[in-house]
Amino acid sequence: MPGLITMDDLTNEEIISILDDAERLLPIAYGERYLPLLRGRILGNLFFEPSTRTRMSFETAMKRLGGDVINLGDVKNSSVVKGETLYDTIQMIDGYSDIIAMRHPRQGAAQYAADACKVPILNGGDGAGHHPTQTMLDLFTIRQAHGKLENLRVVLAGDLRYGRTAHSLSHALVRFGCKVIFASPKSLSMPTEIIADIVRQGGDVEETEDLLSEINQADVIYMTRIQKERFPDEDEYLKVADAYKLHARDLDDAKSEMIIMHPLPRVEEIHPSVDETRYARYFQQAFNGVVTRMSLMCWLLGVGVPGDVIAASEVIA
Amino acid sequence: MPGLITMDDLTNEEIISILDDAERLLPIAYGERYLPLLRGRILGNLFFEPSTRTRMSFETAMKRLGGDVINLGDVKNSSVVKGETLYDTIQMIDGYSDIIAMRHPRQGAAQYAADACKVPILNGGDGAGHHPTQTMLDLFTIRQAHGKLENLRVVLAGDLRYGRTAHSLSHALVRFGCKVIFASPKSLSMPTEIIADIVRQGGDVEETEDLLSEINQADVIYMTRIQKERFPDEDEYLKVADAYKLHARDLDDAKSEMIIMHPLPRVEEIHPSVDETRYARYFQQAFNGVVTRMSLMCWLLGVGVPGDVIAASEVIA
Amino acid sequence: MPGLITMDDLTNEEIISILDDAERLLPIAYGERYLPLLRGRILGNLFFEPSTRTRMSFETAMKRLGGDVINLGDVKNSSVVKGETLYDTIQMIDGYSDIIAMRHPRQGAAQYAADACKVPILNGGDGAGHHPTQTMLDLFTIRQAHGKLENLRVVLAGDLRYGRTAHSLSHALVRFGCKVIFASPKSLSMPTEIIADIVRQGGDVEETEDLLSEINQADVIYMTRIQKERFPDEDEYLKVADAYKLHARDLDDAKSEMIIMHPLPRVEEIHPSVDETRYARYFQQAFNGVVTRMSLMCWLLGVGVPGDVIAASEVIA
Repeated sequence: MPGLITMDDLTNEEIISILDDAERLLPIAYGERYLPLLRGRILGNLFFEPSTRTRMSFETAMKRLGGDVINLGDVKNSSVVKGETLYDTIQMIDGYSDIIAMRHPRQGAAQYAADACKVPILNGGDGAGHHPTQTMLDLFTIRQAHGKLENLRVVLAGDLRYGRTAHSLSHALVRFGCKVIFASPKSLSMPTEIIADIVRQGGDVEETEDLLSEINQADVIYMTRIQKERFPDEDEYLKVADAYKLHARDLDDAKSEMIIMHPLPRVEEIHPSVDETRYARYFQQAFNGVVTRMSLMCWLLGVGVPGDVIAASEVIA
Repeated sequence: MPGLITMDDLTNEEIISILDDAERLLPIAYGERYLPLLRGRILGNLFFEPSTRTRMSFETAMKRLGGDVINLGDVKNSSVVKGETLYDTIQMIDGYSDIIAMRHPRQGAAQYAADACKVPILNGGDGAGHHPTQTMLDLFTIRQAHGKLENLRVVLAGDLRYGRTAHSLSHALVRFGCKVIFASPKSLSMPTEIIADIVRQGGDVEETEDLLSEINQADVIYMTRIQKERFPDEDEYLKVADAYKLHARDLDDAKSEMIIMHPLPRVEEIHPSVDETRYARYFQQAFNGVVTRMSLMCWLLGVGVPGDVIAASEVIA
Repeated sequence: MPGLITMDDLTNEEIISILDDAERLLPIAYGERYLPLLRGRILGNLFFEPSTRTRMSFETAMKRLGGDVINLGDVKNSSVVKGETLYDTIQMIDGYSDIIAMRHPRQGAAQYAADACKVPILNGGDGAGHHPTQTMLDLFTIRQAHGKLENLRVVLAGDLRYGRTAHSLSHALVRFGCKVIFASPKSLSMPTEIIADIVRQGGDVEETEDLLSEINQADVIYMTRIQKERFPDEDEYLKVADAYKLHARDLDDAKSEMIIMHPLPRVEEIHPSVDETRYARYFQQAFNGVVTRMSLMCWLLGVGVPGDVIAASEVIA
């Protein structure tokens, strides 16, 4: 069944069309208007590892469109612990829902599930693999701020080695002709095979260890969480992490329309002082997960988003 | 954003008006009539500690009114364990819902959340702090039985030291001119600062260690759970707890319209023999959580409850 | 309150009528048509032990019919751990919902709950007791394949000693004149009192340890999971379990319309090679849980299923 497993499942034209639909759906996502496009549909949430933001924004997206949701719930209390295979679990949810959002710790699990079932699968993250709905909401947020996706200067910062979000996003950005700067400590730099792949794709990329000196030219700074567990000891972690933290005072020379993004949860990468600045866009970005996932579910279910959403919807009192 | 953090957020007139709305909504809460006043709205359930009754009655309240609910779920599986601050978690739910019900172990957390977000917060209990939706359903239950809130004789019994429910309720009762009797063992007596506060408010209060001798004059006996964990040893607990248990045979001299309430869950404070008596009102009280929360959500969302609910609603087959 | 606690609560005529309703509801269960027969109704899911398939299919059944669901959730996080009795928990849910689906580890718990509450209880499994909604979906699946329930040759295989599913189903099958063969290792054979009971009922039963030699005559082979924990050691388990596994190559002489069923989750009882054969019916059987539970809820709530479901429903775009 068609689904969204990696960003390669979408052409640039499809990406733009889905983002256009998402934009029109904003009043629905904000709860200002009611438009039950997915009434009668059921989303099966199949999170083999927890992901608060992704799961909840999928739920809100479905419910804002009049559909409903069933949750597998905590895997530790599910049939999975009785030894059920992923194949069998998928067969079950396949019969109970019209579309599935799935997160799984194993790379490739989403494709495996898509091959095994009849309803569309939305990959909500498969281990070190892909997380295309995150990439779509990232692209939506960038376009919302800059009015376009083309020819922007985007700095991806922090843990680029293990960060699946950064991998997927950088691939997508070069498809739209963005210049991508990878700012990370050496030990957490973007894997060379991913860089090679991007360059082969014609991408314009650069690497640096110095995040701060990139701020004044950037259109987007995309921060990611550096996880303590990656480091042999606390000292090593602190040395590295300190250089990849943003504070409001670091932003004095930033371009006025620059935005700071983060897939969240953040820990210390972005100081709360940044929240008050005009650059902070990470909470809006989290919200954009709702509208982007609304649009993606409509697309996968073949439900057209009306050209004039206001006319097609009812006001919520 | 306005919300309901403590009972001080409501004037007496507002309390009465919300209880009036709740009363009219009873046929909806009973599932006899369908009135989707909150269609298209989403409640975010943010329970940082579990509370079965509070969470489920909020869910039923929202769903009876045609709205929907998203749950943060088990905090141990949420982004909170990755180190996310309360502020950031609130920002997320703020974007995914139209109103939030929150329980948190820390006193003051609900006010903090209300300051941090754009949608109304309903405080579902913040540690030793407040639990105003419980107080509202308690008031509803008392008024339902006695036809008024004024000038009743209400005995609060059991653990008055740690019981946030008893604190909030006693404040509210004196606002309506009730006489409040605190019946507890010395070690679990109402904190002196709360009594002082109530007296300053003009409240008519009394303290006693003898619950049984209060029964025959009471209009309401409000029992609370005495927790074993509060005591240094089992003996100490048993000695105290035994004096704060009600049995049907204790009620022979009660006034005929007297009611026995309990926030539930009960353990041994109320013997099952009481359940069969005319006095037992705790299960009705738990049910009343639905209709009171329906009314509170309408009020916070600015949705008017029709004067004639029957005329405005459809029968459920 | 009437409910469904054991299959004895239903006459044969009622069983057939409920299966007829279920059959007509198939387009709704498949999500092809929208028919909100249970709009405004709330199902309370009260699972005192987890059961992914049963819980999720109840949820889908309710939501496909336009109703909604509240979940008690993980019992370890509920008021039950505070010492609340089953009676009190039931009183709570009774006030929050219109119908309850309950699973409990203790035999008899469902009947106890039904006696304690005002809304109908659907027994979703009570320990070693009954699981009638499973039996109903099993009967639906058999009738769907064979066009009738009467006079079939049904082999129940695997763990017949502890398997509540096999007990309930065998009782039901003999009510329709089926011949029932119990194929199990000696140590897991059908309890003699159950066999005696079935024979007293006029049932035609046989016992064997040789599953394979039963295949060629069977109309239905109903496999169940043999749990390792039942055996003193791994060797003992393997010896027994190996004789109760089906592989595609075992099915060469099967009747063409024979079906293989399993309540799921399976572990190794059915080799994946069987999935591709015409005989495999266990995934369809799991799906049938939705449509059967839709029909049962309508029946218990007194909601008629239209004779012409297509005419009464709307297409889902």
